[in-house]
Amino acid sequence: MTTDTADAPQASLSGRLAELESRLLAGDRRALARVLSWVESGDERGREMLRALYPRSGRARTIGLTGSPGAGKSTVTNELAKSFRARGQTVGIVAIDPSSPYTMGAILGDRVRMTELYSDEGVFIRSLASRGALGGLSAATQDVVHILDAYGKDVILIETVGAGQDEVDIAGAAQTTILVNTPNMGDEVQTLKAGIMEIADVLAVNKSDLPGADRMVSALKALLSLNPDRGWDPPVVRIVGTKGEGIDKLTEACDSHFEELQSSGKLKAAELARARQQITSLARANVLNRMRTKTGEQRLADLSEAVASRRADPHSAAAAWLADS
Amino acid sequence: MTTDTADAPQASLSGRLAELESRLLAGDRRALARVLSWVESGDERGREMLRALYPRSGRARTIGLTGSPGAGKSTVTNELAKSFRARGQTVGIVAIDPSSPYTMGAILGDRVRMTELYSDEGVFIRSLASRGALGGLSAATQDVVHILDAYGKDVILIETVGAGQDEVDIAGAAQTTILVNTPNMGDEVQTLKAGIMEIADVLAVNKSDLPGADRMVSALKALLSLNPDRGWDPPVVRIVGTKGEGIDKLTEACDSHFEELQSSGKLKAAELARARQQITSLARANVLNRMRTKTGEQRLADLSEAVASRRADPHSAAAAWLADS
Repeated sequence: MTTDTADAPQASLSGRLAELESRLLAGDRRALARVLSWVESGDERGREMLRALYPRSGRARTIGLTGSPGAGKSTVTNELAKSFRARGQTVGIVAIDPSSPYTMGAILGDRVRMTELYSDEGVFIRSLASRGALGGLSAATQDVVHILDAYGKDVILIETVGAGQDEVDIAGAAQTTILVNTPNMGDEVQTLKAGIMEIADVLAVNKSDLPGADRMVSALKALLSLNPDRGWDPPVVRIVGTKGEGIDKLTEACDSHFEELQSSGKLKAAELARARQQITSLARANVLNRMRTKTGEQRLADLSEAVASRRADPHSAAAAWLADS
Repeated sequence: MTTDTADAPQASLSGRLAELESRLLAGDRRALARVLSWVESGDERGREMLRALYPRSGRARTIGLTGSPGAGKSTVTNELAKSFRARGQTVGIVAIDPSSPYTMGAILGDRVRMTELYSDEGVFIRSLASRGALGGLSAATQDVVHILDAYGKDVILIETVGAGQDEVDIAGAAQTTILVNTPNMGDEVQTLKAGIMEIADVLAVNKSDLPGADRMVSALKALLSLNPDRGWDPPVVRIVGTKGEGIDKLTEACDSHFEELQSSGKLKAAELARARQQITSLARANVLNRMRTKTGEQRLADLSEAVASRRADPHSAAAAWLADS
């Protein structure tokens, strides 16, 4: 076994794609939008562009935001973006929560707040609606993040609802994961997807001007104390997203976590884990998806015929089928 | 895409394996037993032997027997084997039911009846205890059947309990599938795994000297009438396995079904379906199992490293990982 294939030089792009790549790298938002659409829909051109652009990724900081619907994640994402912008950093936002105002249109108040970001050239917002992407939502999201990273965004915020395993994977793949809670969630803390506390690096108590904020902070700290051996003590930060209160503290908490990742050497381990997770989910999805494509179906029919007529044994046929890409 | 890999000439075996192959093909039971152990445990030598022997398979008739525990499948298998032996045909028996006397040791009466078979050179009995085989129980069973087929057995009887999807797959992969019922099963007919009636080509009512046999026959015929468009009308045969009663009729029913398969051209279609099912289950299992092997784990670590350090993009890495066999 060698890593030849993986280490092979990147194939060069054909004329039109090469031109699109140049435009994207020069900051052309329309070129970026087109490439992201291809990546999302599993278009082969998206894969080619990703192959070409991926070596330029790896610079951006990635921050995942997750939590129950109604926790105010979009507002917090919004405020965090403004906070990074105020420092002069460029921001990419990837919204996966289907109830996010980025995804499905916002109520008036949200729109007003978000207008600032939409008109800022330093911010690029992308909602991922499609769940039909090759390799699943998690792999598609990571590809979108890679492209925004190669495009040059300094910070990428990934907003997802903490509902399913896919969403937990997505949030967990970011360097820093913020779990957004609210005082009025009450018993809902218990119903949060198991494992979501384990991936949280920073806890935000949003709407902390509401009654019950103290109780929520205590409850979260109690939950965190059940899992003390993580080498990092996740801070619990009170914020009021709609007023921008506490956002600087949240940004600072993210910075502290990132510095800890760097100094402890965990950043590299996390990047390896993310790469591994994406490879295996793509590999698994690849096998399942192949059965649903016309060429994959034809190839399987040919191999079945070869096995049935004893020209190939089943194991060699299975290996040959897997070797096709 | 080509079928080159699948159609490539079979690799020749190295010295010791080639000698083992010759001995097996000359009828050496110990050589056969060794190869089957390798095949069952997923040993690479088993795979090599299968690759070499597979082209010699495809001659044997295969008959699956399934039904609830306690239906007397082992006794029926036993009697069927004797019936085929009486015609001068050689028999292979593959027992998967973990409660089968072949598998776990029999009560005295069973042993006495089975001794005849064990001492008959024309019969080879193999129980498959391992559920840890690469590709799952279904693929391992099919490999064992291929080897017994290449070894030269005329008829291969596959006994499995109709409990899980794996078992239904196994029984369904045989050319003819017998569903063994008993009068005293009463309401259990309803609890038979859904889909098991669909794969039954012949229905046996065992222990039909017990009260309720008529009712069971009627119930089965009623169930069959719900699914009339299969082009073959599964006969319902009364037998008393322990007395050998009705076994000749059961053998004849299997013969009729086999003739129908041949004359209708369904035999080839069924063989194709079986090959397809084995290829896809091996392919799926291959991906999952690779993560559990040392080399697969190392390769995944190398590829994750390549992706994390931007020497390879995730899609190329996933394709490279799948291409390894």
